[in-house]
Amino acid sequence: MSGTTLDDYTDRYAGRMRGMTVSEVRALFAMASRPEIVSLAGGSPFVSALPLDEIADLTAALIRDRGAEALQYGTGQGDLRLRELVCEVMAVEGVIGSAEDVVITVGSQQGLDLIAHLFLDPGDVVLAEGPSYVGALGTFAAAEAEVVHVPMDASGLIPTSLDETLRRLAAEGRRVKFLYTVPNFQNPTGVTLTESRRDAVVELAEKYDLLIIEDNPYGLLGFEEGPGQALRARSSDRVIYLGSCSKMFGAGLRTGWVLAPPAVREKLVLVNESQVLSPAMLTQMIASEYLGKYPWREQLKVFREIYRERRDVMLDALSATMPSGITWTHPRGGFFVWATVGDGLDTKAMQPRALAHKVAYVPGIGFYADGMGRQNMRLCFSSASPDRIREGIRRLATVIEEETELRQVFNTPSAVRRGPHGGPASRTSFAPGPELA
Amino acid sequence: MSGTTLDDYTDRYAGRMRGMTVSEVRALFAMASRPEIVSLAGGSPFVSALPLDEIADLTAALIRDRGAEALQYGTGQGDLRLRELVCEVMAVEGVIGSAEDVVITVGSQQGLDLIAHLFLDPGDVVLAEGPSYVGALGTFAAAEAEVVHVPMDASGLIPTSLDETLRRLAAEGRRVKFLYTVPNFQNPTGVTLTESRRDAVVELAEKYDLLIIEDNPYGLLGFEEGPGQALRARSSDRVIYLGSCSKMFGAGLRTGWVLAPPAVREKLVLVNESQVLSPAMLTQMIASEYLGKYPWREQLKVFREIYRERRDVMLDALSATMPSGITWTHPRGGFFVWATVGDGLDTKAMQPRALAHKVAYVPGIGFYADGMGRQNMRLCFSSASPDRIREGIRRLATVIEEETELRQVFNTPSAVRRGPHGGPASRTSFAPGPELA
Repeated sequence: MSGTTLDDYTDRYAGRMRGMTVSEVRALFAMASRPEIVSLAGGSPFVSALPLDEIADLTAALIRDRGAEALQYGTGQGDLRLRELVCEVMAVEGVIGSAEDVVITVGSQQGLDLIAHLFLDPGDVVLAEGPSYVGALGTFAAAEAEVVHVPMDASGLIPTSLDETLRRLAAEGRRVKFLYTVPNFQNPTGVTLTESRRDAVVELAEKYDLLIIEDNPYGLLGFEEGPGQALRARSSDRVIYLGSCSKMFGAGLRTGWVLAPPAVREKLVLVNESQVLSPAMLTQMIASEYLGKYPWREQLKVFREIYRERRDVMLDALSATMPSGITWTHPRGGFFVWATVGDGLDTKAMQPRALAHKVAYVPGIGFYADGMGRQNMRLCFSSASPDRIREGIRRLATVIEEETELRQVFNTPSAVRRGPHGGPASRTSFAPGPELA
Repeated sequence: MSGTTLDDYTDRYAGRMRGMTVSEVRALFAMASRPEIVSLAGGSPFVSALPLDEIADLTAALIRDRGAEALQYGTGQGDLRLRELVCEVMAVEGVIGSAEDVVITVGSQQGLDLIAHLFLDPGDVVLAEGPSYVGALGTFAAAEAEVVHVPMDASGLIPTSLDETLRRLAAEGRRVKFLYTVPNFQNPTGVTLTESRRDAVVELAEKYDLLIIEDNPYGLLGFEEGPGQALRARSSDRVIYLGSCSKMFGAGLRTGWVLAPPAVREKLVLVNESQVLSPAMLTQMIASEYLGKYPWREQLKVFREIYRERRDVMLDALSATMPSGITWTHPRGGFFVWATVGDGLDTKAMQPRALAHKVAYVPGIGFYADGMGRQNMRLCFSSASPDRIREGIRRLATVIEEETELRQVFNTPSAVRRGPHGGPASRTSFAPGPELA
């Protein structure tokens, strides 16, 4: 009966909202977008390299000739023509899928959210690489699932660790709903799962009756060799595959897809309709025109060349400027390098100094559900120009040197707000923010 | 350890999926889309009346000049320019809102889903008009909430009934999370809430500390007089307002918005990011170009004139052909007429006969969460041509006459599969299907 104030909605929220707070990296991105700051933080594709005139022309023709279809409601499963075309895209990585089993989504992120809605009850266990994509962690946390990380190294997810984790959880009587993995040029590490480990992971899935969510936005962006065989190419009934137009075409279309076994696909369509009725016909048809009429394989070569050069620039700059004790991954594709600064430093605590030196990265803690990652940072090479990357890494080296010196003086790691066991002070659901895509 | 078969996913699904089954109206729509059938079932805007050449031109210019922005990730709250422009749209109905408090969504449907995620725990009570929009019922059911219908008449939701319902639920100790209402040219009835009742509903919201979700896709499509004052124009802290470009511009853009109090808006942005990272920049910027540069108010006049003529044709045809005992609403705007066939008939059971006579409608049962609506049907006048509407109503009259004759012979209503108390045999979550938008 009392008047409503700004805080009066609190007790109306659903229980699942309790843990959902603003990601700490959000404020970072507001800072990082200032022009004077070299941002190695974002994960944006370099869409300026797209053939904008051609896309403008094909879009205009589409609206003129089939506007009454493009501006109308579609179906919850998505446009059939686009579903056929993404099957051609997946075939490049050995995936034989039928358009019947594809569901178009509002970017891969919505694909993840549909899967979370379909499979996850509160308290369910999800396995994911440690570290893992922050947007997936956010969606699993929104579903109140518990993410258990499986260690990875320079060859990707470690099968023996996966085996151990599955055995331990089974012994504890805990049901693992699925393994979430980004096998190619992973976000955030840039690491790719080797072919032999792919075989081993699929074998473990058979052994433990495990479902795998294979998220593959970067698979066609390899710099050194052609794409490997997808996990989905190895198993059609244990793997649900997520693809995306965001990195191969344009993120602003918000067009992704899920390839799933028929029973799962049917449910995904229901949830999709409940969430959005249908994905936008306009952007689906633009994607179809692009994939059907434009030489997209040639455009991928353009992207790969741009990103390869930037990767080289970043790795060279790291080698040239970083103090000893700092290590980093050597990605063979994708957008990201993952750096490790050593025990004495805390990348989150170091962030203000980095911003003062006009460089931004993403602290590693955002990519773990368990408070790990304080000695890591994600460095993105896809969006800044080579000169800006060089300058950014130079500034970052200075930041690390200053921070190291300070820590040596005080002889203490710079970690802040640790919980009683060295973990984070509280469990936080990360809402990812589009900047982390 | 066993191999996975097609059915092996069942025990992996989340508990919330148990009640989610394919809507029975889905099969209907597959039938209804055949060209020989006059469909009065869909709820699609007549987008062929849009200025497709102009939209093609402004879209092409947008991609050419600002493609690197339009094809890139946006923010979870949505594009600022579009948020400013939809405030101008809302001002037509007396809503004074700030762009700061607008969240852009993937159509209003996603706005509903965000609200369900934010507010609804399993078992929560939501109030809605009886009947109500099937897509909202589906989303509330997906959130495992219980919808309690509040009766309406030709003047909309009945305030005394709302008062009684709120009092009863309070006495039962049941918390009502919100009232969901479509005050203008409601889907499915076409009925509009009178101004005096709007005052009464907002007063009751104050009295019972009630939150109102005002869903207003049709408000600017009134045929007789200018738009009324929105509920949100009467209360800014008790009302969350949902708007949409689907009926005033194009449904294929999947662009809607929510105007919410700041504390709620912040949470909605978090959930939006978790679901889709950001709405599509491309469709948002097309909507901005359209609302900012094209005379959209003039285009609304074009739409209103088309829909008004079709409404008149439908009402005239109903008067001319329907047997006695059949009644229907007289909408002053929007897309829908709601017909009542009387006790002897069941509109769901009658559907096969209607399809045999090559006419389709939506049985009323889809618009209730409690199994009511068997004597009702929704007739849509927005998408079929006047001649098709005339022919469809003529066929429908024949169907009703035949069905009435049959029922008189057998002296039994045609209802099928009733539960023990005359309700439906089981609680079913409707996935709405885009056709019902």
